[in-house]
Amino acid sequence: MSEGSHVVAVLGRGLVDADERVITADDLGLTRGDGCFDSTLVRTDRAGNAAAVDLEGHLDRLERSARALDLDNPPRSAWRDLAACALDTWSTPGEAVLKLVLTRGREWRPAGPTAYVSVTHLRDLGTGEAGPPRTITAVTLTRGHPADAFREAPWLLGGVKTLSYVVNVAAQREARRRGADDVIFTTTDGYALDGPTSGLLVARDGVLLSTPPGDTGILESVTVEAIFEAARREGREARWALVPVEDLYRSDGLWLVSSGRGPVLVTELDGRPLRHDPGLAGDVAGYAGF
Amino acid sequence: MSEGSHVVAVLGRGLVDADERVITADDLGLTRGDGCFDSTLVRTDRAGNAAAVDLEGHLDRLERSARALDLDNPPRSAWRDLAACALDTWSTPGEAVLKLVLTRGREWRPAGPTAYVSVTHLRDLGTGEAGPPRTITAVTLTRGHPADAFREAPWLLGGVKTLSYVVNVAAQREARRRGADDVIFTTTDGYALDGPTSGLLVARDGVLLSTPPGDTGILESVTVEAIFEAARREGREARWALVPVEDLYRSDGLWLVSSGRGPVLVTELDGRPLRHDPGLAGDVAGYAGF
Repeated sequence: MSEGSHVVAVLGRGLVDADERVITADDLGLTRGDGCFDSTLVRTDRAGNAAAVDLEGHLDRLERSARALDLDNPPRSAWRDLAACALDTWSTPGEAVLKLVLTRGREWRPAGPTAYVSVTHLRDLGTGEAGPPRTITAVTLTRGHPADAFREAPWLLGGVKTLSYVVNVAAQREARRRGADDVIFTTTDGYALDGPTSGLLVARDGVLLSTPPGDTGILESVTVEAIFEAARREGREARWALVPVEDLYRSDGLWLVSSGRGPVLVTELDGRPLRHDPGLAGDVAGYAGF
Repeated sequence: MSEGSHVVAVLGRGLVDADERVITADDLGLTRGDGCFDSTLVRTDRAGNAAAVDLEGHLDRLERSARALDLDNPPRSAWRDLAACALDTWSTPGEAVLKLVLTRGREWRPAGPTAYVSVTHLRDLGTGEAGPPRTITAVTLTRGHPADAFREAPWLLGGVKTLSYVVNVAAQREARRRGADDVIFTTTDGYALDGPTSGLLVARDGVLLSTPPGDTGILESVTVEAIFEAARREGREARWALVPVEDLYRSDGLWLVSSGRGPVLVTELDGRPLRHDPGLAGDVAGYAGF
């Protein structure tokens, strides 16, 4: 891992060394997972100019997460400054991830929320020098709840990108144990949800479908929304719909979608090869700007 | 908050100032809630001698949590030394909580797991100088899943005391919003589960009942187990059983149970006053050693 692969900037302190300790033992983000985050792609050109993709969209979502958690969110300008502070020192060409982290702060002293940003090169996130893969295999795993579990239950924090991500991480470990790359979560009543760190996109009869946020508890995917908008502009139908798990095996294309990786085609699900429409796959990559 | 109210000891470093930063920005315990913890009561006599109650039982549970997460758990002797290191400097008479925290460690550098312990006086955990209350009011809130959601789904981490606790914290906020002190989680098919930071104990016809761990995903409560053992030694029936939510309102006694507070009697549920058998309540406090 080379020097300069990671940058960290902390609210109230500015840039710190990436190896410096920044969090106390009583920070509720650590002891309770009580906080939220967001992340977006950073593209850096050969001259070393770094730019975050749709930072405002991700700051919007972070603000919604903070509100759902009754968290004090620093002003938008403070986040922008913090991101600029980190990106100003970032000059590694290629793709990186900007992560924004907000916690409820310290339990033992009144010190306000903890907020910081980090920038990490994608090649340091286990994707290798070649960058993230464009196709993957996946398994379906139950998320343990019905599709409407989050209706009128705001304390379950559906749609909130919290720091409490341990089940998502454990599910990805289970996928690797089964020889697959990633996971599509399913409901107890037989619908597809999303991936542990990605949204879901399904093509059927030329129409793009994605799980509706809301009662399902899934995160709104900024990238799925961008794909939907671009698809509609080009005259393709795109809509939110609960997709039965069985339909995944006979789709015309299945993708896991994130801001860091864009749309990644799923070529095998639960060991069964999936077919896809190559023209459509090209369209989807184009909609996402990849 | 007085000096000496908090002690922190970090694996590989020993005692640190409670205000010192101990965690880097990429610690997976923070960024993913990817870690586990356990906590137990500390009793300190007037001479300042501190002792943790059933440390071994809690280290057993921490080990089970670490195993479920595929986490490298430091050797038992390292945890004992770390706890002893913290307790040796602790001399504040009364009741405190010893917390043991283990995370997957850093994402950007191979540095092994992060492990630390903290000791906090109970009066600094919002319980006031009088110590924790012996009775509370509660509301029922859905946990969003059926009672058997965790069957054959180990990636959902049922029974694992992870750092991803944000829903538990949000549910307690919802309780306060409704004018109550705490929460009893319920399943989508109508059973009681446990509290956000406590086990559940229900008395019916002189028998003590508690939600079975396993398929329900609830945490095993070291304190409920201790109460069950003591009750059985004294000839009282005590067993694991799924209790319908409706039965909570007509129990002979309802408690939320934790190692820090012992059994706390619930006197009102969802605004409905609950009756209880005072003799039985005395017995239960005795079983728990409170």
